[in-house]
Amino acid sequence: MTARGDVFDPACPTRRLLDRVGTKWVSMVVKLLAEAEPDELRFAELRRRIPGISQKMLSATLQNLTADGLVARRVEPTVPPRVHYRLTDLGRSLEIPLASLRAWAEEHMAEIDAARSGSGA
Amino acid sequence: MTARGDVFDPACPTRRLLDRVGTKWVSMVVKLLAEAEPDELRFAELRRRIPGISQKMLSATLQNLTADGLVARRVEPTVPPRVHYRLTDLGRSLEIPLASLRAWAEEHMAEIDAARSGSGA
Repeated sequence: MTARGDVFDPACPTRRLLDRVGTKWVSMVVKLLAEAEPDELRFAELRRRIPGISQKMLSATLQNLTADGLVARRVEPTVPPRVHYRLTDLGRSLEIPLASLRAWAEEHMAEIDAARSGSGA
Repeated sequence: MTARGDVFDPACPTRRLLDRVGTKWVSMVVKLLAEAEPDELRFAELRRRIPGISQKMLSATLQNLTADGLVARRVEPTVPPRVHYRLTDLGRSLEIPLASLRAWAEEHMAEIDAARSGSGA
């Protein structure tokens, strides 16, 4: 299957994909894994570097990224087992558009926050 | 206020902003408004061009984009009133990263769909 997706087609999985990868949590996880390269990161390390994320949310985010083939998971058979994460090539390609969306949000945050406060007055 | 946002700071509004603009609906609305320029688009026209969006969801999406200062709304005092939408300069700047995320999703959709089907087996 090599068909190109179409976000305007309601039957096309591109829509669901866009909602899965467009979240703040995905953005942060992918950025940290990209920066860590060539090293992997452990679950606890990711959690420590993303203040405010719950164990459950980080777990769900990593599970989704792994199911999508964007993140690879390696279990080290220690007791308790250590789980390591890294980006796949596909995951690495996602960091490019995510970084540009993140940069846009960080750059325009103050301006948008001001618009929002104004409109709420 | 000209401070740059930081998505890794849980107190910073950048996180919420990222989740607001990272959705499939925002991506489609902003693309259509960008393509329509210099013309505006009416609510019904947007709805017709986004198959599968509900009236309620399109309304909420436009309300959010307007509150964020990304979309401008013009009410024509007809009976019933006609409401026209267009991008602001800020909204236009958002189309650049959104287009790159959309292109990524459309390009890799099939590959990711295959990974997902495989992992569910």
